[in-house]
Amino acid sequence: MIGHNAYVIGVDIGRTTTLVALVNGNGEILNQMEFPTLPEKGWEDTISRIMQAITSLEECIPEHGIWSGIGIASAGVINCERKNIVYASNLGWHNAEVGSVLMERFNVPVRLGNDANLAAVAEYVWGTKKDVQDLIYITVSTGIGAGIINGGQLVQGKSNSAGEFGHITMDVMGQQCKCGNYGCLENYCSGTAIAYIADRRLGKLKGQSWTTKDVFEAAQNGNGIALDIVKVAGIYLGNSIVSLIHLFNPTKVILGGGIINNDNMLFQEANKTINNRCLPTMRNQVTIQKTMFGKEIGVLGATGIFFMDEVSS
Amino acid sequence: MIGHNAYVIGVDIGRTTTLVALVNGNGEILNQMEFPTLPEKGWEDTISRIMQAITSLEECIPEHGIWSGIGIASAGVINCERKNIVYASNLGWHNAEVGSVLMERFNVPVRLGNDANLAAVAEYVWGTKKDVQDLIYITVSTGIGAGIINGGQLVQGKSNSAGEFGHITMDVMGQQCKCGNYGCLENYCSGTAIAYIADRRLGKLKGQSWTTKDVFEAAQNGNGIALDIVKVAGIYLGNSIVSLIHLFNPTKVILGGGIINNDNMLFQEANKTINNRCLPTMRNQVTIQKTMFGKEIGVLGATGIFFMDEVSS
Repeated sequence: MIGHNAYVIGVDIGRTTTLVALVNGNGEILNQMEFPTLPEKGWEDTISRIMQAITSLEECIPEHGIWSGIGIASAGVINCERKNIVYASNLGWHNAEVGSVLMERFNVPVRLGNDANLAAVAEYVWGTKKDVQDLIYITVSTGIGAGIINGGQLVQGKSNSAGEFGHITMDVMGQQCKCGNYGCLENYCSGTAIAYIADRRLGKLKGQSWTTKDVFEAAQNGNGIALDIVKVAGIYLGNSIVSLIHLFNPTKVILGGGIINNDNMLFQEANKTINNRCLPTMRNQVTIQKTMFGKEIGVLGATGIFFMDEVSS
Repeated sequence: MIGHNAYVIGVDIGRTTTLVALVNGNGEILNQMEFPTLPEKGWEDTISRIMQAITSLEECIPEHGIWSGIGIASAGVINCERKNIVYASNLGWHNAEVGSVLMERFNVPVRLGNDANLAAVAEYVWGTKKDVQDLIYITVSTGIGAGIINGGQLVQGKSNSAGEFGHITMDVMGQQCKCGNYGCLENYCSGTAIAYIADRRLGKLKGQSWTTKDVFEAAQNGNGIALDIVKVAGIYLGNSIVSLIHLFNPTKVILGGGIINNDNMLFQEANKTINNRCLPTMRNQVTIQKTMFGKEIGVLGATGIFFMDEVSS
């Protein structure tokens, strides 16, 4: 537990870009640095550039400020105790010992978390100021994931793998997912799925594969099949959220990720399904909204874990 | 927080039978009384008979024992703060103010909970002795429900309605459920569903509707269609558990309820599906088992809530 005069460095390691930020105890970003992750050079290379950024940002901590730690958000399977990235398929890293390297260099506490889980932490700690004890954050991007806050606690599970929302079953008899299971949510409404379905149903677009942006644009311009694709994706996304609401009875469900942030149509279609299909007693209790945070949600969540146990100020 | 020299009265109000028990701080039942609920006489009538039972059991508390409270398990929508049963469709009760009546009469703390949620509490507090911080209890009976323990906390949600596992979607395009949604789990593998599907596929049995017991017997005696019905129910149940495992990454999943306790076939079929379809990294972390508790799980859960915050002894 740390006070609000504390400063924390947040690191968000994405496939393309890494963001490092200095955040104060009110969740304000004082300074930030962004650079290409270049994961193919190996995790040691990326981490050395992260350390350079931290050294620069460290100098921005005010004179009486206390530097309380480094929080790291990453995709993949995280070992929170050993503070390493066990496996991150999108980075191609196995057993990246980022925590121990940073602790040795800076001698401050280091915490790691999965990016979707930490986005929920950002919403809880900085977004709702811990007023909302039960919330779910859903990211819809190339894949789909979730972070769940229950009673002010992050749902992490035994090996910090909770929130694999993209791999809940929406159709027991559906087609096989790359995870091995059948009919997973990700196959119906992730960015990858929407583009793939458009390729199949509409043929290539000027010889190229469709992007989700293309599909949304075509739908908005009156292409009936593109509109159907978005509507069906919305039914699946909405229904998956209904299942979450029935399981968790949350106060807030917050959606983010590229596919939600860049367009309104999928969000609207999902909401229609939620309104039609959710048990009214639970629907009436929950607010469904888009995230207020931009690309900084990862660094805000990574710093937020240091303030999880704090009493609301 | 109460000590282990405490005694708690547990009450489990079922559709047919009400069980009242005196439980000590080790989860041992010292004495119990069982009688017909007769909910059609109104909740005031049932509660007066519950009060008589409590008065008898109160006398069994040893001389230096401290009577620390009354815990009540009931189906339906519970208001844990106001300690009333808002609505219980199986009992036909609306706004049953059981908590305030009992507190006024006995002057001890009273706590209420949903029966599936409290069964998870029984497994956590008395079954695992709080060694397992993340577990899920699933009851398969006429309906399907779940109780979820995350990090030693019960997942209750905003209005104590969390765990409506019977109403997660297993087929977005499936048939309508009585809840209004489509393709809910309950329609594929609850006791009600299995009997209903047998009626449809096999015709009435000697002019009567099938019971699940009939279906399991027929399957065991080599009736291929009955066997198919159980196998398909197992695929749906197993797949729904896969979704839960992917969301929660739990250490234990424990199944109970009449349909699971009285036969092994559905449990085995569900396990096959879980083994085939779950992400191996999470499947390897979780034990799937049947409950060790019998009909006393409700009263044990109802008393267990008083010991939730205790440090493991």
